[in-house]
Amino acid sequence: MSFLPVDILIQLAVQEDLGHGDVTTEAVVSAESLGKAVVLGREPFVLSGTVAFRRVFETVDPSVEVKARYRDGDEVPRDEPVFEIQGRLRSLLTGERTALNFIQRLSGIATLTRRMTRAIEGTGSRLLDTRKTTPLWRALEKAAVRHGGGGNHRFGLSDGILIKDNHIQAAGGIRPALELARSAAAHTLRVEIEVEDLHQLGEALDAGADIIMLDNFSIEMLKAAVERSGGRCLLEASGGVDASTVRQIAETGVHLISCGALTHSARSIDISMELC
Amino acid sequence: MSFLPVDILIQLAVQEDLGHGDVTTEAVVSAESLGKAVVLGREPFVLSGTVAFRRVFETVDPSVEVKARYRDGDEVPRDEPVFEIQGRLRSLLTGERTALNFIQRLSGIATLTRRMTRAIEGTGSRLLDTRKTTPLWRALEKAAVRHGGGGNHRFGLSDGILIKDNHIQAAGGIRPALELARSAAAHTLRVEIEVEDLHQLGEALDAGADIIMLDNFSIEMLKAAVERSGGRCLLEASGGVDASTVRQIAETGVHLISCGALTHSARSIDISMELC
Amino acid sequence: MSFLPVDILIQLAVQEDLGHGDVTTEAVVSAESLGKAVVLGREPFVLSGTVAFRRVFETVDPSVEVKARYRDGDEVPRDEPVFEIQGRLRSLLTGERTALNFIQRLSGIATLTRRMTRAIEGTGSRLLDTRKTTPLWRALEKAAVRHGGGGNHRFGLSDGILIKDNHIQAAGGIRPALELARSAAAHTLRVEIEVEDLHQLGEALDAGADIIMLDNFSIEMLKAAVERSGGRCLLEASGGVDASTVRQIAETGVHLISCGALTHSARSIDISMELC
Amino acid sequence: MSFLPVDILIQLAVQEDLGHGDVTTEAVVSAESLGKAVVLGREPFVLSGTVAFRRVFETVDPSVEVKARYRDGDEVPRDEPVFEIQGRLRSLLTGERTALNFIQRLSGIATLTRRMTRAIEGTGSRLLDTRKTTPLWRALEKAAVRHGGGGNHRFGLSDGILIKDNHIQAAGGIRPALELARSAAAHTLRVEIEVEDLHQLGEALDAGADIIMLDNFSIEMLKAAVERSGGRCLLEASGGVDASTVRQIAETGVHLISCGALTHSARSIDISMELC
Amino acid sequence: MSFLPVDILIQLAVQEDLGHGDVTTEAVVSAESLGKAVVLGREPFVLSGTVAFRRVFETVDPSVEVKARYRDGDEVPRDEPVFEIQGRLRSLLTGERTALNFIQRLSGIATLTRRMTRAIEGTGSRLLDTRKTTPLWRALEKAAVRHGGGGNHRFGLSDGILIKDNHIQAAGGIRPALELARSAAAHTLRVEIEVEDLHQLGEALDAGADIIMLDNFSIEMLKAAVERSGGRCLLEASGGVDASTVRQIAETGVHLISCGALTHSARSIDISMELC
Amino acid sequence: MSFLPVDILIQLAVQEDLGHGDVTTEAVVSAESLGKAVVLGREPFVLSGTVAFRRVFETVDPSVEVKARYRDGDEVPRDEPVFEIQGRLRSLLTGERTALNFIQRLSGIATLTRRMTRAIEGTGSRLLDTRKTTPLWRALEKAAVRHGGGGNHRFGLSDGILIKDNHIQAAGGIRPALELARSAAAHTLRVEIEVEDLHQLGEALDAGADIIMLDNFSIEMLKAAVERSGGRCLLEASGGVDASTVRQIAETGVHLISCGALTHSARSIDISMELC
Repeated sequence: MSFLPVDILIQLAVQEDLGHGDVTTEAVVSAESLGKAVVLGREPFVLSGTVAFRRVFETVDPSVEVKARYRDGDEVPRDEPVFEIQGRLRSLLTGERTALNFIQRLSGIATLTRRMTRAIEGTGSRLLDTRKTTPLWRALEKAAVRHGGGGNHRFGLSDGILIKDNHIQAAGGIRPALELARSAAAHTLRVEIEVEDLHQLGEALDAGADIIMLDNFSIEMLKAAVERSGGRCLLEASGGVDASTVRQIAETGVHLISCGALTHSARSIDISMELC
Repeated sequence: MSFLPVDILIQLAVQEDLGHGDVTTEAVVSAESLGKAVVLGREPFVLSGTVAFRRVFETVDPSVEVKARYRDGDEVPRDEPVFEIQGRLRSLLTGERTALNFIQRLSGIATLTRRMTRAIEGTGSRLLDTRKTTPLWRALEKAAVRHGGGGNHRFGLSDGILIKDNHIQAAGGIRPALELARSAAAHTLRVEIEVEDLHQLGEALDAGADIIMLDNFSIEMLKAAVERSGGRCLLEASGGVDASTVRQIAETGVHLISCGALTHSARSIDISMELC
Repeated sequence: MSFLPVDILIQLAVQEDLGHGDVTTEAVVSAESLGKAVVLGREPFVLSGTVAFRRVFETVDPSVEVKARYRDGDEVPRDEPVFEIQGRLRSLLTGERTALNFIQRLSGIATLTRRMTRAIEGTGSRLLDTRKTTPLWRALEKAAVRHGGGGNHRFGLSDGILIKDNHIQAAGGIRPALELARSAAAHTLRVEIEVEDLHQLGEALDAGADIIMLDNFSIEMLKAAVERSGGRCLLEASGGVDASTVRQIAETGVHLISCGALTHSARSIDISMELC
Repeated sequence: MSFLPVDILIQLAVQEDLGHGDVTTEAVVSAESLGKAVVLGREPFVLSGTVAFRRVFETVDPSVEVKARYRDGDEVPRDEPVFEIQGRLRSLLTGERTALNFIQRLSGIATLTRRMTRAIEGTGSRLLDTRKTTPLWRALEKAAVRHGGGGNHRFGLSDGILIKDNHIQAAGGIRPALELARSAAAHTLRVEIEVEDLHQLGEALDAGADIIMLDNFSIEMLKAAVERSGGRCLLEASGGVDASTVRQIAETGVHLISCGALTHSARSIDISMELC
Repeated sequence: MSFLPVDILIQLAVQEDLGHGDVTTEAVVSAESLGKAVVLGREPFVLSGTVAFRRVFETVDPSVEVKARYRDGDEVPRDEPVFEIQGRLRSLLTGERTALNFIQRLSGIATLTRRMTRAIEGTGSRLLDTRKTTPLWRALEKAAVRHGGGGNHRFGLSDGILIKDNHIQAAGGIRPALELARSAAAHTLRVEIEVEDLHQLGEALDAGADIIMLDNFSIEMLKAAVERSGGRCLLEASGGVDASTVRQIAETGVHLISCGALTHSARSIDISMELC
Repeated sequence: MSFLPVDILIQLAVQEDLGHGDVTTEAVVSAESLGKAVVLGREPFVLSGTVAFRRVFETVDPSVEVKARYRDGDEVPRDEPVFEIQGRLRSLLTGERTALNFIQRLSGIATLTRRMTRAIEGTGSRLLDTRKTTPLWRALEKAAVRHGGGGNHRFGLSDGILIKDNHIQAAGGIRPALELARSAAAHTLRVEIEVEDLHQLGEALDAGADIIMLDNFSIEMLKAAVERSGGRCLLEASGGVDASTVRQIAETGVHLISCGALTHSARSIDISMELC
């Protein structure tokens, strides 16, 4: 689904910030000065984005050394150095912002995901992301969700079948939609369908859906759905999922809980680079 | 600073989601079906991202028609159609997610910016963004800040001089840093320097800085800085800026207030597409 | 899985042949001359590649008109015009070879596929392609297989799980491999595993594989496998599939038959363009 | 004529197969496992594609070591290891298919070319390819022809002049076509023209063609052409060339024999990778 | 030889100048203002670059209309409008510099070429360019030479054989170099060799060179070379060619005169755009 | 402002010359031959382009070693080796032309700039380039100006405000143009305006321009302008600047002198590579 190696995107991202050069640093810092810096968070967080962080500095100046003291998925205490960087001072200053922009955002996603997966520990449910990601950075954001302990829903329109209300309407009902999907789609894919109430759930079960997404179901409806399906298929809760509701949802017994906010509304972590 | 026309990035973003094809839609919706849809927000918001929204559908299928009922920067009431789209039903469904991903995020930025620029109305201060943007989408995010009523700080490292603490340290002090910048940099650029206390402010004023960024100053310090500078240069407040503090900061009399959260932590707007 | 829109690949393909210009045509044919041509096969064939064919001429010269008298998947008799082309004579001559290179090869794939799907008509088996495609043209070649009446196996490594002998060995057996795959992989994917004899088939059935690929099974073994599985999972025959064996294989009752030769060894159709 | 370094095309080809990741291998094989493999043919063949083969693995994982036991152009016996590969097991499995797709196809071309050049050994004729190559892989396929012992006709429309029947018709005859070509084309290029019978051959000889392509001439006509031209220009036979006819054609005394089937219809060699 | 369609290079060139936007024009000129402009030279010149000029404005804003009053190759008097442009005033101002940069340079090449081809009128010699062109713009610069009345030497290393002194040294002499070239190179190419004195000329003639480049020969030596070769091959004079020497060189009877200064040292024409 | 890393442009430039291969060198020079060469100028010059020169050979063959005996900005005597190169002879010959094309042109710019900055030594004026650069090579050409001792004007339309006559006309006068620019543009940019006579100068001074460009002012007018402005803003002379006039212009006391000819009309230096 990806279309250009992430490496090239990161090179382009460096270029986006750099333009024709870092005019401040070139004016003020001599080409020979060396420097050391540490990168640390102003709050505890779950790390994600190590690869992008490194790659930014490799692009700016391959002689910069980046040592990581933590790995993606680790919980990093406040004010604790995550990376130690050393090399030409100019290169450290030039790469700083772009490198931080990656880990601030990706660690924000991993941290939110960790909080929510913690909240459902002990239940049988698995927390998933969605396709509500930042265009061009889906691979990195879905990795951040994994670093936070969540799982990935499909990566794009071609590696999973998900029949939504609009598809159902176009096909003339749940059964015909499922039959069309089953006969046309690759045999390697399961068929998932989104339903809006228990009546539709019944139809989908009868028509043999592999996975049923329960869209905006109340807790009561979710419980009823779990009971009704009797384990015949996977159930996925979707809509209205946040840190305050996720435990309750998980306790209904659904197998999967998908949450767009993991990627579209995570707050960035306040991470900064300090020269030492 | 941009490095590839935004159009190409949007094409790549469509490709990222589409992969080798929308397997669900191709299985379930016939190639001939036509459709109409509206796009509306589940909450009031300030629109941004119209160009990207259109371009996504143009990329998916140039025969899809997109009519915009609002323009970037407009305040759109809840549940009010922003766009009307019509064309091949398959194309509407295939472009939906990527198109929404753009306007949800960009409108989130515009909406937060609007809230904060409203908060400082009547003061003489101007609200600015920073370089804490999503890699590769800086041009779109800075446009969203303008749609929200804010202004743009520099676009990258090459179109503005901003001497930060690390530069000062490398240059051996505020005065030498300013002198190096002034002599080496393009004559078309003003020189901005970041200071951390009133003492440094004094030094920067004496050395003739064009713009001084007051980093993490308390309200009292900001007031003192405004008084001390006596209009000799532009003052920019930075750090700790949010919806609850921005008015107070503006009332100190600083000219500029920069806020990274506008772009790095705006919540996405809940916008969806509905077939009619 | 695709990484660049096919349109860009086709533009690059035109460029590959064109270099700095068609020196013969520019020398010999005046810029004003107009021409008409038809494209026809020297043998009957199943058409595929219409989109690429058109796109080549659009790239060379958008004013060239291409009328298609057949559609992808149609059976075209020998010497029957498939396309009528008119426009600047120079453009017709310059685009000719690249346009033909696409349809000769893609129609070769469609034609071979049609022959083999015909051979298994009436059985319940479906003929599938593999990933043995020409690098960069997988999307077009898999479309050609569909035009020939076949189905597509997975498009790449990320949209289907297929556990092969090397994976089994690495995982320490069929059961652990299946368990690892089931727990780590996306819930939208079925799990397919390749087995080499009836004993392994038994293990895979017991461990709950969704699909079992029977690698290089004799006809007798295939029959035994169908019986043994008793409909508990999909069975896919693979290896030694060609026009002379496919019917026998299909009659064993396997659901799927995959054949690499469809894409890696189809003979090109002899198609040429004639000015009229 | 090439337009992008082949290295970039190979990177894109890896990406085409890889998509967002090799979900099977990542699920089933641990990141630490190491492996060794050999690559061998199930039939004797002439090797081509070593560079592409290596490059695929370098792209997937630069730490994989590929040792070649043969060189492009060598004849490799059945079941004899051509390459030994070692490194991360995951990387071996992920690169396998794309790497094999290159050498299967390219070795197929080299092998067919070798068979045909063997057939004409001792005659003075040279076997050439044509522009009937797979779009984007012309450089690799023309190299495969050289590995098989053949020569290359022009690489594209800009590095050779070849006047075909359509050009003759547009120019108003053989003589005016040759004169236009001679006066407009670069002085570094010879002028080649295609003729369809002995009468046209005479005209082309009289008008001073450097090279004459004899299109679909019978053996008798070829002999007559050789006699008629009396060594005044190079003669190239074209059309109806295959393994069964090439010797006879060569014995007529033509200097060159061009054969599109070398690249458009060579059968892939059955080559596979085995873990050891 | 070209590697990316010129159109894409021109898009990138527009981007190079535009960066994140034309900040002056966006600040000062309203988005609605329309304008008209003419483009004219401050000196008489031969026009080249029309295609690039148009394409720049099409890239900036497809609604801008560009009317050309002259065609590439025309002699344009001083102060005479070459193009009339109308459309959004912002777009005219934004595209101005890049569009002019193309035609100033390309028309400079065409004008110098015209001056020199005029100088040799009536002789049988033809003036040629070399490969001393601006990287990435070879196709446009070679077109400019044609617009000036000159001819093109080879476009790159792959569409012509030119054996230079270093090649001769490596091959061990003129004869072996010519023999290696003849036997290895494509039959569609002539073989050219560079010689440094009359002795080498003799060797090259004896060894059957198709074209001989006479490097830095004096007028007397050129005359002797013409006599010595007796029409057995094409002769190309090279080195020390400028407006003051070209006539004398041509009168020696050489067939071709190549001149690097045409592309590497032409002075730009002073062309400007004026709003009306 | 840059849009693609210069490295990629250089790779493409190598490809432009190389096409499908260096047919002469491959035919004549054996793959094993090694060689050494020096690069030297046929006239004294100021070096620029070292990075591009190296990169060309790295692209052709990473094993080639390039030793630089001078650095960008150094004055190199005639016939003195600038670079020593060693490695595969084929690679030296294949990279030669493209590598030389870069340094000939860039050194031409540096040399002309040095001559003109020498001419104004001791005055307080600084010599600047313009945006009249070769499309796609602006970064390299502006670096060449710095190597020659000059300074850079803005890099593109987005990193400097420069109000020209057309902008003034569109805004309805000098004052409104300056006010619009000041209020809309980034606070980090100074505002520069172009004036055509002393009257306009007065208006611009009154309206508070930061920098005033004096377009085509005579020496007398420049003197008057310097007096009139009394140090209130930076003054830039533009138009009619060449080696013969620049000293007189500088002596008027203007701060800046911009000269398009530095980049658009510098003569290439005659530099060649010699095998040793």
